[in-house]
Amino acid sequence: MKKLQLSKIKITDALFGSYAKQVADKILLYQWNVLNDKQEDAFPTHCMENFRVASGEAEGERKGVVFQDTDLYKWLEAVAYCIANGSGKRYEELADGAIELIGRAQEEDGYLNTYFTVTAPEKKWTNLVEGHELYTSGHLMEAAVAYYEATGKNSLLNIAEKNADLICRVFGREEGQIKGYPGHQEVEIGLIKLYRATGKRKYLEEAYYFIQERGSEPNYLLEEIKRRGRFEFFPEFKNYTSSYAQAHIRPAKQKTAEGHAVRAMYMCAAMADLAGEYQDKELLEGCQALWENVTGKRMYITGGVGTSGFLERFTTDYDLPNTTNYSETCASIGLMMFGQRMTEVTGKAGYYDTVERALYNTVLAGINKEGDRYFYVNPLEVVPEFCTANTYMDHVKPVRQKWFDVACCPTNVARTLASLGQYIYAQDENTLYVHQFISSEAEAEFAGGSLRLKLESELLQTGRIHMEIDGKAKEDRELFLKIRVPAYAEKSGVLINGRKTEPAKENGYLVIPLTGAEKIELDFGVRARWVAANPLVRADAGKVALMKGPCVYCLEEKENGKNLSALYVKQGEEIREEAPAAELPGELPTLAYSAVRMINPGIAEGELYGEAAFEEEKVTLRAIPYALWNNRGQGEMLVWQKLKF
Amino acid sequence: MKKLQLSKIKITDALFGSYAKQVADKILLYQWNVLNDKQEDAFPTHCMENFRVASGEAEGERKGVVFQDTDLYKWLEAVAYCIANGSGKRYEELADGAIELIGRAQEEDGYLNTYFTVTAPEKKWTNLVEGHELYTSGHLMEAAVAYYEATGKNSLLNIAEKNADLICRVFGREEGQIKGYPGHQEVEIGLIKLYRATGKRKYLEEAYYFIQERGSEPNYLLEEIKRRGRFEFFPEFKNYTSSYAQAHIRPAKQKTAEGHAVRAMYMCAAMADLAGEYQDKELLEGCQALWENVTGKRMYITGGVGTSGFLERFTTDYDLPNTTNYSETCASIGLMMFGQRMTEVTGKAGYYDTVERALYNTVLAGINKEGDRYFYVNPLEVVPEFCTANTYMDHVKPVRQKWFDVACCPTNVARTLASLGQYIYAQDENTLYVHQFISSEAEAEFAGGSLRLKLESELLQTGRIHMEIDGKAKEDRELFLKIRVPAYAEKSGVLINGRKTEPAKENGYLVIPLTGAEKIELDFGVRARWVAANPLVRADAGKVALMKGPCVYCLEEKENGKNLSALYVKQGEEIREEAPAAELPGELPTLAYSAVRMINPGIAEGELYGEAAFEEEKVTLRAIPYALWNNRGQGEMLVWQKLKF
Repeated sequence: MKKLQLSKIKITDALFGSYAKQVADKILLYQWNVLNDKQEDAFPTHCMENFRVASGEAEGERKGVVFQDTDLYKWLEAVAYCIANGSGKRYEELADGAIELIGRAQEEDGYLNTYFTVTAPEKKWTNLVEGHELYTSGHLMEAAVAYYEATGKNSLLNIAEKNADLICRVFGREEGQIKGYPGHQEVEIGLIKLYRATGKRKYLEEAYYFIQERGSEPNYLLEEIKRRGRFEFFPEFKNYTSSYAQAHIRPAKQKTAEGHAVRAMYMCAAMADLAGEYQDKELLEGCQALWENVTGKRMYITGGVGTSGFLERFTTDYDLPNTTNYSETCASIGLMMFGQRMTEVTGKAGYYDTVERALYNTVLAGINKEGDRYFYVNPLEVVPEFCTANTYMDHVKPVRQKWFDVACCPTNVARTLASLGQYIYAQDENTLYVHQFISSEAEAEFAGGSLRLKLESELLQTGRIHMEIDGKAKEDRELFLKIRVPAYAEKSGVLINGRKTEPAKENGYLVIPLTGAEKIELDFGVRARWVAANPLVRADAGKVALMKGPCVYCLEEKENGKNLSALYVKQGEEIREEAPAAELPGELPTLAYSAVRMINPGIAEGELYGEAAFEEEKVTLRAIPYALWNNRGQGEMLVWQKLKF
Repeated sequence: MKKLQLSKIKITDALFGSYAKQVADKILLYQWNVLNDKQEDAFPTHCMENFRVASGEAEGERKGVVFQDTDLYKWLEAVAYCIANGSGKRYEELADGAIELIGRAQEEDGYLNTYFTVTAPEKKWTNLVEGHELYTSGHLMEAAVAYYEATGKNSLLNIAEKNADLICRVFGREEGQIKGYPGHQEVEIGLIKLYRATGKRKYLEEAYYFIQERGSEPNYLLEEIKRRGRFEFFPEFKNYTSSYAQAHIRPAKQKTAEGHAVRAMYMCAAMADLAGEYQDKELLEGCQALWENVTGKRMYITGGVGTSGFLERFTTDYDLPNTTNYSETCASIGLMMFGQRMTEVTGKAGYYDTVERALYNTVLAGINKEGDRYFYVNPLEVVPEFCTANTYMDHVKPVRQKWFDVACCPTNVARTLASLGQYIYAQDENTLYVHQFISSEAEAEFAGGSLRLKLESELLQTGRIHMEIDGKAKEDRELFLKIRVPAYAEKSGVLINGRKTEPAKENGYLVIPLTGAEKIELDFGVRARWVAANPLVRADAGKVALMKGPCVYCLEEKENGKNLSALYVKQGEEIREEAPAAELPGELPTLAYSAVRMINPGIAEGELYGEAAFEEEKVTLRAIPYALWNNRGQGEMLVWQKLKF
């Protein structure tokens, strides 16, 4: 199974189309201004200036975090996807200029990293634990491949290859090579993409080396820390363990998701790719174990991962607090990348239940409807006044931010939304796969024919999906459509050209042989439903969350008043669908239901503890999709609601 | 109102007597060994060795935190109290030796601090924000006064005075003086005690200066940080604001408890003393405002304060999460000190409701029944496996620890328990005050007579208190007994010599004129009761806690099984008293009641989210006092229990 080219996909969806349009119309421009320190209302990033300093065209210091360069690379990657999907042509000139600058900042031998080139050239490759050189190169490679595929221009690809060639020379098991691997995974993904774009197998082999060497003894990262005797960039690493970077044992043998969540998810994505490329059964089993641990024990209902605000990391099974969590937007993007690849490698659709969960909730929540404000951290319960600075809640922001010191998330969301089509469709030699139900149009070419598909989704409204397919197989050939059946589907009724049909089911797909022009109507019976968590999730014990399809709903102060913690809903309470809130995109219904608010008249204002004498008031609650919260001003928000037993 | 000498008080209480005996028999010896790096199972502290290095008697580095010296001072203070209360004579020789060593480590001009003397003599008094020099001196002064009062020996007092004289020369508003104040309050308390012991008013004036200068503009601490341009000891101070050290405005004008909780509480204690000494009405109003904010909006039901694990600090009103909180043992000791002084200054008994709450819950929880393990952090809900290292939960330990890198709490608990008598009794010219109901005997001398009192308390069992009083007023004089009526008393029936009596009530006291030998029997009607929190405390919404008198009760896994979060109790559920748990000290009843456990058979093992289909199982729960939790092995613990509505 492989990706469909973005140029062959057009998103027409009311919800995602709105965000995709923001990416092209506003986000890329906003981010470009930020990268160039021209956005008045955002932190200066010095990002482009760093490249000018590195190339010798400007004087002065190199500034920002050690991996600041990646902001530009992820912007370029997003621009490439927008060019490919037809919405980003206007950025091509800016991008070409930026690429030329990047080229001038690259050293003779292929080295490319503004921090080490300018600030600490003698320390190149000496601090894999903190230095992010390989991580930064990985984002360069991803951008280069995307830009090459979108434009056919190989300027950035050449830069990336030169850099990758250097990495292949520097790192490995041969005499004179560094037998190390990245402290933050990402270069593996880049190398694999570079291999696929260029056909040069050494890139694939280098990625495989990085994954296989990881966690071997003696531990490279710990030895490096011993040699250096101190932390240069991150003092908070003082109690560093190799599990923080998923290097405590070989990745194939890891059974639990440990350490920094983005590192873990990027590693898993690369592992899945490599398991497929090498048909490495042990590595695939490792992927499977990690997938089950993440999605079965360590993931929020919103597809958020990484419980701990301190060090942005996984903690332990069932530890999923709702107010203090991290659930970084980037980590959920990593989870999407992992799931996408697991389906590619195994041919099984089920992973997309989680891809969809992450996308429709945490990832989309990462950005506001206007496209110029971002969440880095995605809690499931917010009381704005409790989000105090310089305390245990410092990482939790009650409103989306303009930009961040460490700004991985805004550009990551942009590149994900710009490449959304590749999370909807995939193809193999004779099959078009439909993994998600986002209104769109797609074209696919096969050796045995070609197809045009128009998908109109009412997944989040009626649960019905309409597809029109045009094109068919050549003589003696067959073409298939495989449609993922989501886990939440209460039925999977199919009408083909108006006739009720029972297609075969295989690996989580409905398998539909295509015979010519077809109209397919699906009804997944998507109703709003109450969901509970495993009782071992102490934070959610006795609570329910409201979902419709993949969408988690939440209560906001706007409709439901202050102190959402005092609200109780009855098990099985009937849910009514109401018109979408006027201010929110996507035409998603508001969900309404009866509930009670517990009050305690026995406790006076200013009294902290008193008699337990609760009384109940009847109320009607109205819930909106979690992804859209905080688009109408600051206020309380709550996903998990208490049950009235 | 002033303190009663400890030599006149004997604790006979089953609960507190047990701990007080541990202090004298074991804790002081254990801590002495720790200070001398002779306790095999605890971190080496280098504490005594530092003094030897500072005095030139040993070679090598000075080690440990910058305020390591205070461990010895607090140990000496605790020894002094034990000598005074008759249980610590055996430590006097060790103490005398330690005091001689301290004297030899003191510099000519009175300077005394092993860190700055040995490691950074050129930096004395230059880092008030982080350096803790004045804090350390404050603990020296407290120890000196206690040792002098206990033994009559003035060796340590002379050292402390010489040090205080230096501080009075160095800090102040005169030409050539540093117009600064401590980054961590404590020296104010020490100076006030030194004034009261020596009569030298300049010490009082210096303390008053420190409190009055605090928070003035330009801000001394912020200017100092600007001058230095970096943090030397605490990198986590990087976003330091003056409110962290309660120096954002003048203390008298502060309306909310901000910043580091121990700093805040020590400051408040000194403010109360000074408000009394100077009859400073504005300062007393400041104390009152801070008291109301802490106890009315920012205090756990256990008397814990300081919500944030990061920086051990206050956050905001009603932000009282139960699993991630800090609630440092020392901060609750500071709250006791504050409340004790507020009663001394105002003559009102009510502050002791909070003193008692802190003492009976958080402070006592700080130590195990054997006296050799300590909690620094006191959560109200613990799932041991969620207390993961190097994550957002790193500060929360599921079992008491042997010692700490920063070991303020163990010695602070020891000195508090050793001086407990002074939290029970106080006196003024003609009155003996009884503030707490801890079985004990006391003698008091007045100009107008003398008294002997024997108090037998069944406060935590039947709620009845028996007192026998011997002694009376001289002719033409009157003596009074004033007994605090606690807020939880449901009645205050009094029998005097068997006769039902209705004493006058004044400022929260029953006022009993003494006419000779009296037998007083009090019945406060102390029943186990369900308590709720203000609904604005989101963490406790719809939950109840169980209290009896001042004791908060909790559920432990031992009696109630795993997953305490799935338990629900009905509002007003009847509570049965059962025999005390055999393994726990103090003869406190176990409280038993009916409840239900919610289970969800619809969610399978390994499944994280599924159908909400809860069912209930009837169970009987058994609660024990919070102070005694974790004395029978590791397990879950829960204070706030969900209500079944």
